[in-house]
Amino acid sequence: MSQTETHSAHELFPTIHADLAEIEGRLRRTVHSRLPVVPEVYLHTVHAGGKRVRPALTLLCGRLVGDAGEATFDAAVAVELIHLASLIHDDVIDDSGRRRARLTANRVWGNKNAVLVADFTHAVAYRLLTQRCAIETVERLSGTVVRMCEGELCQMYNEGSFEVTEPLYFEMIADKTASLMALAGEFGALTAGGTREQAAACHAYGEKVGLAFQVVDDLLDLTGDEERIGKPVGNDVRCGRLTLPLIHALNQPAELADPVRRIIVEQPTTSEAMHALRDALAASGSLAYTAATAQRLANEAAVQLADFAPGEARSALEALAAYVVARTL
Amino acid sequence: MSQTETHSAHELFPTIHADLAEIEGRLRRTVHSRLPVVPEVYLHTVHAGGKRVRPALTLLCGRLVGDAGEATFDAAVAVELIHLASLIHDDVIDDSGRRRARLTANRVWGNKNAVLVADFTHAVAYRLLTQRCAIETVERLSGTVVRMCEGELCQMYNEGSFEVTEPLYFEMIADKTASLMALAGEFGALTAGGTREQAAACHAYGEKVGLAFQVVDDLLDLTGDEERIGKPVGNDVRCGRLTLPLIHALNQPAELADPVRRIIVEQPTTSEAMHALRDALAASGSLAYTAATAQRLANEAAVQLADFAPGEARSALEALAAYVVARTL
Repeated sequence: MSQTETHSAHELFPTIHADLAEIEGRLRRTVHSRLPVVPEVYLHTVHAGGKRVRPALTLLCGRLVGDAGEATFDAAVAVELIHLASLIHDDVIDDSGRRRARLTANRVWGNKNAVLVADFTHAVAYRLLTQRCAIETVERLSGTVVRMCEGELCQMYNEGSFEVTEPLYFEMIADKTASLMALAGEFGALTAGGTREQAAACHAYGEKVGLAFQVVDDLLDLTGDEERIGKPVGNDVRCGRLTLPLIHALNQPAELADPVRRIIVEQPTTSEAMHALRDALAASGSLAYTAATAQRLANEAAVQLADFAPGEARSALEALAAYVVARTL
Repeated sequence: MSQTETHSAHELFPTIHADLAEIEGRLRRTVHSRLPVVPEVYLHTVHAGGKRVRPALTLLCGRLVGDAGEATFDAAVAVELIHLASLIHDDVIDDSGRRRARLTANRVWGNKNAVLVADFTHAVAYRLLTQRCAIETVERLSGTVVRMCEGELCQMYNEGSFEVTEPLYFEMIADKTASLMALAGEFGALTAGGTREQAAACHAYGEKVGLAFQVVDDLLDLTGDEERIGKPVGNDVRCGRLTLPLIHALNQPAELADPVRRIIVEQPTTSEAMHALRDALAASGSLAYTAATAQRLANEAAVQLADFAPGEARSALEALAAYVVARTL
């Protein structure tokens, strides 16, 4: 569920500028407690930013099908709360010290506070859905959290393994990342009076965008600029996680696969080793294959919008799908 | 949310023997996944036992007001899932190695698996409430999880402080322990067609029993037998947590308070030091005061049952209140 941040939500979603400002205010107000540490840890993570892609998806899908009212705002905030809580738990689990060029909550306040404030944030997300949304949204959210946990556990379980196939990779990123983006889209349709078919299309759109997003994220972990993505590159490969470029390379003929395998086994820690890995992945065509896969997924996302009336919301969602892939440049 | 276990639920609640066996089976079946680690970690915690006091509370309060049907079973299991998940997170947070004379999940599978399986279990609890229960139960559960997190955070924040007063102590244990037992009782009434007043009485009963339970637990941490309670004694005092006996002693005249303060400051690690602490707490009347406080809370719990018709359910709940205090013997 990691992500890279280069644009603000406002640049990316000009048509919902005011709505996103409203979401930002609600995000800041929603988690409160008589204990000062709760807003401290929580707001640290909120202030770390993020593009608020998930609430934007909810709002835009709500507009796509009808009126995005209070229930849509509640659902949009709930989805982002689950995302923020998962970032806090991920950093505890990975013992990460930096996220988006800032210290992580676990590094500043310790694991105890981080785990409990994330649990607290989770509970607030569920509570928010009980105010104006149907109980179905709770069922969908809890099912999604189950998938997110399974995705993380599956990824962890396969660290250090050379047996990860492309289908298994996609299953893992569908669970850990795309499931919540799919839900964000679906929540927009569900809370704004969309039909079952519309909710399913918004879910499929969000899922494809989420998959493209994670594929690009995994590519940037190998090819990105540390300053720009706000975290160290090469993290996945040092953790022994086979991502799409590596899986592709390892399935090429030996003269292309072997150099990649050798570098992975040695767990590259220097920028020279990372450069050598990048060169080997370029030679095997794996970087190009990964970029093309992300593009295909973004195209498939856009196709899901075909049955909706053209307009600002649809255009913004099309732009989002395009943007996710443009991050590779 | 720690607890000590000396009786099985079946001994304690003979009138709902069959229902508790059903709960046990549902607990084992409810959390499943294609990933083997999920049931491994989860069932390790389920098999560690526990008296299933919370589901018993839900079932008995359900019977007290009407028919305990499928929704009541769902709610009973959901409450126990939240309890089990909180035990897993607590052991991660406290870096505990043993619970009920077994290794903890974090010690066997590591913090990553433990945190994620607890998150997974939380989500399953919410999902269960969406099957047959009203959305109000989700609102009540999420509010309770918020209180449980606040209780844990508040306790952690006050570790090492000599400023903890009796009202603050009761606020902390109400949040971290009694809130879920109160909800367990309330869920019984809510899911079995009870009135608002009945739900409030069941909530109050569960809260008082929960307070008595935690007061006794804190007493046993100072006076209990390690073999019998299945965990090291003196844990609270070594963590710098002022519990009721210590708070009482520190508020006595200097000649009684000072010996206690001296031992606490030195953080007793030997059984000699723990004996000296026990003697000092006996001399200050603090052990007797704490036992009397637990008895008073148990009596107050029983009073909440006065307006319900006499019968098996009410008798079992009265017996439970009495049992919680009898653990001190």
